[in-house]
Amino acid sequence: MALIVAKFGGTSVASPERIQNVAKRLIAMKNEGNDVVAVVSAMGKTTDELVGLANALNEHPSPREMDMLLSTGEQVSMSLLAMAINARGYRAASFTGWQAGIVTDSTFSSAKIQEVTAERIKAKLADGAIVVVAGFQGLTEDGEITTLGRGGSDTTAVALAWGIDADVCEIYSDVDGVYTADPRVVPRARKLDVISYDDMLELSSAGSGVLQSRAVELARKFGVVIHSRSAFSDAPGTLVKEIDMFMEQAVVTGVAHDTSEIKFTIRDADDVPGVAAQVFSALASGSVNVDMIIQNVGENSHTDISFTCPKGSKEEAEAIVKRIMPRIGGRDYVIDENIAKVSLVGTGMKSSPGIAAKAFSVLAENKVNILMISTSPIRLSIVVEGSQCQVAARCLHEAFGLDSESVFEETALSPEEIAAKMQKGR
Amino acid sequence: MALIVAKFGGTSVASPERIQNVAKRLIAMKNEGNDVVAVVSAMGKTTDELVGLANALNEHPSPREMDMLLSTGEQVSMSLLAMAINARGYRAASFTGWQAGIVTDSTFSSAKIQEVTAERIKAKLADGAIVVVAGFQGLTEDGEITTLGRGGSDTTAVALAWGIDADVCEIYSDVDGVYTADPRVVPRARKLDVISYDDMLELSSAGSGVLQSRAVELARKFGVVIHSRSAFSDAPGTLVKEIDMFMEQAVVTGVAHDTSEIKFTIRDADDVPGVAAQVFSALASGSVNVDMIIQNVGENSHTDISFTCPKGSKEEAEAIVKRIMPRIGGRDYVIDENIAKVSLVGTGMKSSPGIAAKAFSVLAENKVNILMISTSPIRLSIVVEGSQCQVAARCLHEAFGLDSESVFEETALSPEEIAAKMQKGR
Repeated sequence: MALIVAKFGGTSVASPERIQNVAKRLIAMKNEGNDVVAVVSAMGKTTDELVGLANALNEHPSPREMDMLLSTGEQVSMSLLAMAINARGYRAASFTGWQAGIVTDSTFSSAKIQEVTAERIKAKLADGAIVVVAGFQGLTEDGEITTLGRGGSDTTAVALAWGIDADVCEIYSDVDGVYTADPRVVPRARKLDVISYDDMLELSSAGSGVLQSRAVELARKFGVVIHSRSAFSDAPGTLVKEIDMFMEQAVVTGVAHDTSEIKFTIRDADDVPGVAAQVFSALASGSVNVDMIIQNVGENSHTDISFTCPKGSKEEAEAIVKRIMPRIGGRDYVIDENIAKVSLVGTGMKSSPGIAAKAFSVLAENKVNILMISTSPIRLSIVVEGSQCQVAARCLHEAFGLDSESVFEETALSPEEIAAKMQKGR
Repeated sequence: MALIVAKFGGTSVASPERIQNVAKRLIAMKNEGNDVVAVVSAMGKTTDELVGLANALNEHPSPREMDMLLSTGEQVSMSLLAMAINARGYRAASFTGWQAGIVTDSTFSSAKIQEVTAERIKAKLADGAIVVVAGFQGLTEDGEITTLGRGGSDTTAVALAWGIDADVCEIYSDVDGVYTADPRVVPRARKLDVISYDDMLELSSAGSGVLQSRAVELARKFGVVIHSRSAFSDAPGTLVKEIDMFMEQAVVTGVAHDTSEIKFTIRDADDVPGVAAQVFSALASGSVNVDMIIQNVGENSHTDISFTCPKGSKEEAEAIVKRIMPRIGGRDYVIDENIAKVSLVGTGMKSSPGIAAKAFSVLAENKVNILMISTSPIRLSIVVEGSQCQVAARCLHEAFGLDSESVFEETALSPEEIAAKMQKGR
């Protein structure tokens, strides 16, 4: 007897057979007496195919037209899902983002939701229908179609859950919840029954691909409870919600890893004020998303500056670094593409001193060489060589008491394979 | 220095290369100082593919969801065309049917346009952009996406031309205009420079596939001048417009043929009042589009009833005939799938007696056996055996003075091949 928003990603609706499975699942929820709103992404590779068509015509298509084009992907999957539900004798109605009342700003390709006016959805629910909504898209006040960018469908689901005051926002994917670490890397990882918004956010931004940090942020803002669970089983997953501050918590909630970044080092730059500012404002205006920054203590009025950024930004970043080198007197630069970031996350870290010291000793005992360090009150991130990603994640996971009794089947993925698997669509 | 609406069908935008050609064409118009609004159909086989997906999930998908699904096809081609125009350095903006202000009734899958509020188009034209609009679709006042059904994109183009008070509505296709007959069947067919709405309507409904009769009807109603021309050449095509009544006109404007119908004959039905009513109201409520009807004079209180309907309706029609047989006392029924309808069309026929008699003698001289006859004030249609379609069309074309000096390359298409070629998408 609940009002449920259930989001299914692109792989869950990649074929007519899979759409049938989603339909069955939604009907089961409905038969249990719930009101159900589904949010869907585009089918499988649809988005890539549309991007391919666009690029055949224009190397730099206008974001407005790109949003027009890409928003058709979800419109296809939502109508097909509604038809599949109908075929089983249940009422269903699909709605595009604009029909569902998702109002956004006008930043094409990465629009932000400003308002949700879900009157049409509420009316159809009152009629007894299962409502299907296109994720990833909205409409500006001027009537322009927008898309929400990366993580958009999760964000649509959370925003709708808030807009219709749903009891829970279920996000279905190919993993059955949030783990203390990626089981493919740390076989003794445990599934968490519940995790706080803050810990989930740090895990997401540290590389855990289960939930999009943007959606988690929105959920925290509006107090929407997220249930991350498997599209292929009925087992309960992980609840993401506000956790009572006075509850006893583990110091460390999980270990995340991220192999999607590369490291630039500019050597022997002038050690004078303003050099770092020049480098990083140039990178920012070139839309390079810099993650970690280290500037070593200088010698002989020179210093080394290192930073990490996504692999996908390599070309832009390199062009900017080349351009800026003469101005900052740098000798040369090095790009290290084989790195991994391993992070310890836990709200309990705030009140537990000595976490960093313990982590460093554990890594030293395991002969893991630390390349960079960055911290927040509830996160400690360490960059290591790509080949040491697994051993670093495993030894930290064990040292902070996260290991479970059972062991996941050992996997032998390379950091690149892991990175590829962690890439999420919408 | 004109305001032009230019419609391109599915084959004209079937690939990125063809979309480039359309973009070039629109830019050429723009460079000549015109304001340009393009209307596009879905790319090539897109609609068929979407229908295939739908049928994999639901044998009888709801028309509302079907319209949601199919309307994505034009949204893809319109945004790609806008990108292609942008890539050549010109401004462009694409609009879905609802964004373009196409308001329809709520008859999903065959909605009728009720209003056109083209403010957004006018604003973009004033900005100097080439506007691209998705054909075939609209929005109800309740915010539901609809499609216009067969011939929908032509209809969108004519409605928009009226809505923005365009000088001409150019409809591009793979033929270069309206001919006195299909040149593939009648090699001496001539291209017409101009044709009246009435003649064009009769030709369209008699099987000439160049323009959709629905669009011609709308054009006549609002006085929109249509220019039917080739997507592959710059040569002028045929203007469809009001023709001065006092202008001297040819008695017969053209010869159309149609091999898309089949003929049912119910034999020895009771010859009492109400039998025909029972048959044809049953067919009508089964959505079978009956074209010609013949009831022979009865003998021994029994009569034969024949009618023609589209090949695609064979199953429904047969089921209905079977069901109704016992009630009308029919002995049995015969289906003739190998027929062709050949029609003479011309506004001048109204004031020229003896056309029918001349046509019948010409056919007799050429040993063409007449199976059925139907007439309107400006049309004479004759059903013949499929194998006699070509000879009937050619001898009538010659007899009524339509033959040109030049001869089209002879084709040897079977009536089936011709029928397949005449099938038009949206």
